[in-house]
Order: sequence, then structure tokens, then C-alpha cells
Amino acid sequence: MTDSEATTAPDQASRADATRARLVEAAVSAFAERGFHGTTTRDIAAAAGMSPAALYVHHRSKEELLHQISRDAHQRTIDAMDAAIASTTSPVEQLRETMRVFAVHHARGRTGARIVNYELSALSPQHHAEIVELRIQIDQRMRDLVEAGIEQGVFDVPDPGLAATALLSLGVDIARWYRPDGSWTPEDVGEAYADLALRIVGARE
Amino acid sequence: MTDSEATTAPDQASRADATRARLVEAAVSAFAERGFHGTTTRDIAAAAGMSPAALYVHHRSKEELLHQISRDAHQRTIDAMDAAIASTTSPVEQLRETMRVFAVHHARGRTGARIVNYELSALSPQHHAEIVELRIQIDQRMRDLVEAGIEQGVFDVPDPGLAATALLSLGVDIARWYRPDGSWTPEDVGEAYADLALRIVGARE
Repeated sequence: MTDSEATTAPDQASRADATRARLVEAAVSAFAERGFHGTTTRDIAAAAGMSPAALYVHHRSKEELLHQISRDAHQRTIDAMDAAIASTTSPVEQLRETMRVFAVHHARGRTGARIVNYELSALSPQHHAEIVELRIQIDQRMRDLVEAGIEQGVFDVPDPGLAATALLSLGVDIARWYRPDGSWTPEDVGEAYADLALRIVGARE
Repeated sequence: MTDSEATTAPDQASRADATRARLVEAAVSAFAERGFHGTTTRDIAAAAGMSPAALYVHHRSKEELLHQISRDAHQRTIDAMDAAIASTTSPVEQLRETMRVFAVHHARGRTGARIVNYELSALSPQHHAEIVELRIQIDQRMRDLVEAGIEQGVFDVPDPGLAATALLSLGVDIARWYRPDGSWTPEDVGEAYADLALRIVGARE
């Protein structure tokens, strides 16, 4: 291998990564503006400053782009929840921190989160099944947190399943209503929602 | 006026009403399935079993249908909240009943509610302004309820504005996650969410 080859290969890889990132960003904007069904691959290519032919090198269809956006967003959510849960052994503090990061994540990443949550049915059956599996993991983490608090006698709520659903729902819906020019920063919402989560589960402080 | 005229006019009016109702129903299904931007007036006419020309007699555009769906849904929400608020003078019972009807409304009317909440930006500027005005009235009712409880010393919550936002958000997002084949009836969700609302505002029972 010559010196020139050794430097060219990583350069090409990082150029391809940059192109893929640009396409994902263009797809998020286009889907957010006109919905998945109202968007063409031509719209996405144009928004990324590329030809439709160049887009096909990286993604065979707009559904494949939606799948990548969806898979990455759900995996980031799972990773953030896992880090929050691992940060302490107290169910009260675990729920507080999980709700905080879940809320901040949906306020900051609101455009992508709206697409991921409203366009689920546009995924192919195979991709849909894969994303549903990730969503079950997210739901399960919230439910486990609520049930751990009840088992340890620090939470008190009549229907743990519906309480976990309400907590997830509160977080997800931030992506719909949150405006960066409104009264609250994503961190303000995160702190306040962490407290509301503890109220919902009837946490003993 | 002859007897025949007297009976014909109401018959024609009720036939036109029935046609309009069929078009609204077809538009809700089409928008729910393919998004506003992915739906054509031809799709809506076909779903209602009509020709595109017959649709234009009743609605000049799909935007006009979206506007009618949106206006009616928001007005029904305001009416349901007003009835709940008028049913008692206790802030605790007013909030309990308002949250209950708001939640039941979003579980039962989930398909229309999703369209109304996710396709707001597809309305014309004039229609958008009109619907935003109705939404401000809804937000204001929830906020007034929370503040009345604080003033009377029966609610305790650090940020009443964010608590009211969370209550509205919990209700609206039911339209996204609720499934009629799941564990809960709309009434189950309504009862449970009424209790969660009182927890969120720190109500003294």
C-alpha cells in the first residue's frame, strides 16, 4: 500500500459518510414539511444539492431513508434511557433522570421525532417490525422503572401500565408542541417533567 | 307554497348534509392514510363514491375540507370542556371532569384528532389563524382551571403554565397511541387520566 492509498481510502469513506448525513438531514426536512407520502426522492435529492441518480448510490428509496432515520432515533433513545438507569440504583432517581433525558431528547430532536412517530405506517412490513421491536424495548424500560418503584414501596399508582404509557406519551408529545422561541428551554422542560413524572407515580421523596 | 315544495326543500337540504358528511368522513380516512399532502381531491371523491366534479359542488378544495374537519373538532372540544367546567364549582372536580372528557374525546375521535393536530401547517394562512384562535381558547381553559385551583389553595404546582401544557399534551397524544383493541376502553383512560391530572397539579383531595 502506498502512502497515497493509505490516506485516500479514509477520505473517501468520510466523504460518503458526509453525503449520507446530508441526505438524512434533507429527508428529515422534506418529510417534516410535506409528509412522507407528499415527498419524492427528487425533492430529497434537490434539498441535499444532489441528482436523483446520486441519491440512489446511497439509498434505494425514500422508505430506506425513513427506516434509517427511525432506527437511529430509536437507538439513541434506548441508549439515553440506559445511561440514565445505570446512573443510580434508586428507582426515584432513575425515573427522574430517565424522564429528564427523554424529555430533553424530544424537545431538541423534535423534527426527527415527529417524523419517526407519525410516519411509522409508511415503513415496509419488515422495517416496521424492526422499529416496533425497538419501541417495545423503550416501553419496557419505562414500565420496569415504574414497577421497580412499586416493588420497593417508593411509588404508589393504581395502574402501572397506564402510568408508564402516560410518561412515555408526555415525553413523545413534546416533539409536537415544543417551540424553541417559547417560554422554556429543552432543559427547563426536562427538569419540570422529571418532577411531574414523580407526581404521576406517587413517589415518596 | 305547495305541500310538495314544503317537503322537497328539507329533503334536498338533508341530502346535501348527508353528502357533506360522507365527504368529510372520506377526507378523514384519506388524510389519515396518506397524509394531507399525499391525498388528492380525486382520492377523496373516489372514497366517497362521487365524481371529482360532484365534490367541487360542496368543497372547492381539499384544504377547505381540512378546515371544516379542524374547525368542527376544535369547537366540539371547547363545548365539551365548557360543559365539564359548568358541571361543578370545585376546581378539583372541574379539572377531574375536564381531563376525563378531554381524554375520552381524543381516544374515541383519534383518527380525526391526529389529522387536526398533525396537519395544522397545511391550512391556508387565514384558516390557520382561525384554528389557532380556537386552540388558544382550549389552552386558556386548561390554564384557568390550574390557576383557579392554585388561587383557592387546593392545587400546588411550581409552574402552572407548564402543568397546563402537560395536561393538554397528555390528552392530545392519546390520539397517537390509543388502540381500541388494547387493554383500555376510552372511559378507562378517561378515569385514570382524571386521577393523573390531579396528581400533576398536586391537588389536595
